[in-house]
Amino acid sequence: MSFPRLGVIGAGQLARMMAAPATEMGINLRLLAQDPNDSAAQICEHVVGDPSNAQAVLDFAKTCDVVTFEHEQVPQSVIKNLEMNGIKVYPRSDSFIYSQNKVEMRKKMDQLKLPNPQWQEYSGGSTSMSFPMIAKTITGGYDGRGVFVVDSQKDLESLQKQIGQTLLIEEKLNFDSEIAIMVARSPHGQAATWAATWTIQENGICTSTVTPVPEISEELANSAAEIALTIAQGISLVGVMAVELFKVGDHLIINELAMRPHNSGHWTIEGARTSQFEQHIRAVLDLPLGDTSLTSPWAVMGNILGGEKTDMYRPYLHLMARTPGLKFHHYRKEVRPGRKIGHVTLLGSDLVELQQEVQHALDYLSGAIDE
Amino acid sequence: MSFPRLGVIGAGQLARMMAAPATEMGINLRLLAQDPNDSAAQICEHVVGDPSNAQAVLDFAKTCDVVTFEHEQVPQSVIKNLEMNGIKVYPRSDSFIYSQNKVEMRKKMDQLKLPNPQWQEYSGGSTSMSFPMIAKTITGGYDGRGVFVVDSQKDLESLQKQIGQTLLIEEKLNFDSEIAIMVARSPHGQAATWAATWTIQENGICTSTVTPVPEISEELANSAAEIALTIAQGISLVGVMAVELFKVGDHLIINELAMRPHNSGHWTIEGARTSQFEQHIRAVLDLPLGDTSLTSPWAVMGNILGGEKTDMYRPYLHLMARTPGLKFHHYRKEVRPGRKIGHVTLLGSDLVELQQEVQHALDYLSGAIDE
Repeated sequence: MSFPRLGVIGAGQLARMMAAPATEMGINLRLLAQDPNDSAAQICEHVVGDPSNAQAVLDFAKTCDVVTFEHEQVPQSVIKNLEMNGIKVYPRSDSFIYSQNKVEMRKKMDQLKLPNPQWQEYSGGSTSMSFPMIAKTITGGYDGRGVFVVDSQKDLESLQKQIGQTLLIEEKLNFDSEIAIMVARSPHGQAATWAATWTIQENGICTSTVTPVPEISEELANSAAEIALTIAQGISLVGVMAVELFKVGDHLIINELAMRPHNSGHWTIEGARTSQFEQHIRAVLDLPLGDTSLTSPWAVMGNILGGEKTDMYRPYLHLMARTPGLKFHHYRKEVRPGRKIGHVTLLGSDLVELQQEVQHALDYLSGAIDE
Repeated sequence: MSFPRLGVIGAGQLARMMAAPATEMGINLRLLAQDPNDSAAQICEHVVGDPSNAQAVLDFAKTCDVVTFEHEQVPQSVIKNLEMNGIKVYPRSDSFIYSQNKVEMRKKMDQLKLPNPQWQEYSGGSTSMSFPMIAKTITGGYDGRGVFVVDSQKDLESLQKQIGQTLLIEEKLNFDSEIAIMVARSPHGQAATWAATWTIQENGICTSTVTPVPEISEELANSAAEIALTIAQGISLVGVMAVELFKVGDHLIINELAMRPHNSGHWTIEGARTSQFEQHIRAVLDLPLGDTSLTSPWAVMGNILGGEKTDMYRPYLHLMARTPGLKFHHYRKEVRPGRKIGHVTLLGSDLVELQQEVQHALDYLSGAIDE
C-alpha cells in the first residue's frame, strides 16, 4: 500500500483546486483533459482525451487507482463501462445519474420523502400545473442554461417543440433566498456536512456566497444538514455533493444536486478546516473524512466573472494593498464576458465589511470601478 | 502586464509548498531541479540543471520574469552573474550572503547593534573565549550539520585541522528555549512579521513548533518582531526570512538566519491568513503583502522524520480517523532515517491536547507506536 494515483475526468477549475490538497497529502493526481490549455491541465499531470469516448476513458482509468469526475458531461454508458471493467469509479453511475438527470433526481427525492417542488414530465399537450412555471431540460444544464420561466400553456408548447425533448416542469416558487449545503460521504458510509451557505444569484449565476447563512434559525440549518445527509445515504453518494435549496418561509425545498466540488463550496478552502476539495479526495479514496468546522465567524466568497478587462494581474497592486486578507483564486481561463474566471474569499467577524470588500474587489476586477 | 513566471532555484519541499499559492494566484511557477524526482519536480513545471553552474542558471533565469531560491546552495558568483545580466533575482546577492556566510552575518548583526552571542573567527592557535563553546563551519551547514560543541582548546585545534577551514566560534549559551520568527519584506520596503514560534529541537533538528510562543511576555514577543524587522531592513531583504533566536532569561540572542521559507514557518499554511509561501511569492513579485494574523489560538506543527516505516500512506487510515483536524504534508521524498519527509499541523484552543495529538501522529508515523 503506497500513495495512490487519483484520476480526475475533467481539467477545469475544480480539478485545478484539487491539486493543492492532493499535493499536500502526497496523492498523485492525473487528469483527463479535453485540451492541454484547460485550467488544471496547465499545472497538473494530464492526458488529453474525450470524456465521452468509452475507450479513451477506460485507457485513462487503467493508469489510475481510483477515478472521479469534476463535471457531469460523462455519459452513463462511459461510467458503466468503467465499472464493468473493474475500475473503482466514484461517485458510481447509479449515484451520478441523479446529478445528470433532473427527472431521476425528482423521482428519487419523492421516494426519499424529501421536499420537492410540484413537478411533472412534459412532452406536449396541456398540463394541470399553473403558470408561471419553470421548465428545464432534463440533462445538460448549468449556470442558468437550460432553465426557462414559462408564462403560458402556449409558450410551454412552443418551448417544448423548439427543444424537441421531454422537459421537466416545476412549480415556480416564491422563495426568500437560495441556500446550498455541501456534504461528503465515503464508501464506508462516513458522512459530514459543512455549514450551509447563502448563494446570491443574478440571472441564474451565483455571484457571491455568505457562510454560514445569515439570519437562519438553528432548526432550519439543521434541516438543511439532515436533507443533505439523507440524500447522501439514499443515493449511496461517494465524494462530495452540493444540495441547492430554496428557502420559502420556514421550509426548504430541493432545487438541484451537483455531485462534485461546487462553486457554493469554494469558501471551504480558507473558511473550513477541511476544504471540499480535500474532502472529495479523502472520500473517493475511502480515507476518514476531515474536520469541517469553520475557521472564522463568516466567510464571503465572490465569483470573478469575465468583463471588459483582460489583465487580471495588475489589479493585485490595488486590491492586495487595500484588503490584505483577501484570497485570490485565478483559474487562468480565457476571459470571456460572464464566464467564471476566478473567485475571491475573505474571512472575518464583520459581515457587512466583508461583503463590502468582496464587492469592491469584484467591481474593480470587472472594470466597473477604477479605484 | 499579465501573470508573471516565477523561477525557483531548487525543487525540494519548500518549492513544492510554493506551488499551491502560486496556482491560486495564477502565478506561473518554473523550477530549476537537480533531479526530476525532486519533491517539487514531481508536481511542477521544471528544468533539470546544476544550481552551481552559472550558465545553466542564467539560461533558466532568462525564461522567467523573476527568480528566487529555495535553498542556500547557490554560489554568490552565480547570483551575481544573474544580476549583471539584468535578471530580477530576490533576495539579492548582497542580502543572501548573510544567509550563506555565518561570519558576514555576525558582523552585520554587530553593525546593526543587534544581540549576538560572543563570537570570533578561528583559524588556529589559542583563543580568549571560554570553553565549552560552539564551533561552526562558516558556510554550508543546516539541521545541526556543521555545528560542534567544543570542550577544550585542544579539541578546537584538532577540529579546525580536521575541517581545514576558518571556523566561526561562538559562546555556548545556557538558553531557556529556541524561538524563530518569520519576516517578509518587498522591494518597496513593506515588511510584515508573523507571531513568533517556539521551535523544539532534538539533536540539532527541529522536531516540532508551537505558535505563538507559550508563556512569553508581550515585551519579548515585540522584541522578536523588532529584531526581525531591523534585520530585514538592514540587509534590504526581499522575500521571507527566518530569524532563529535563543531566549536567555528576558533576552533574545540571534542564532541563525535563513533567507527563504523555513521549517519554523510551516505552521503558517493553515495557521495564518497568509502563509510564508504565499508571502514569499508576493514579496519577490513586489506585490502588497498579505495579512499575517493567526487563524486559531494555537498552531502545533510536527516534523515527520524518516524512520523504519516506508509506507507513509497506510497510517492515514488510523490518524485521519483519530484526529479529523490534523493536516498532512507529505513531501514524497525517499524515506531515510532522520530525514524530514513531511509534516503535520493541528490548530485549536487546547495546547496540551494539540501537542498530544501531534506527538501521537509522529510516533505512529515513525513506527514507535502502532495504535
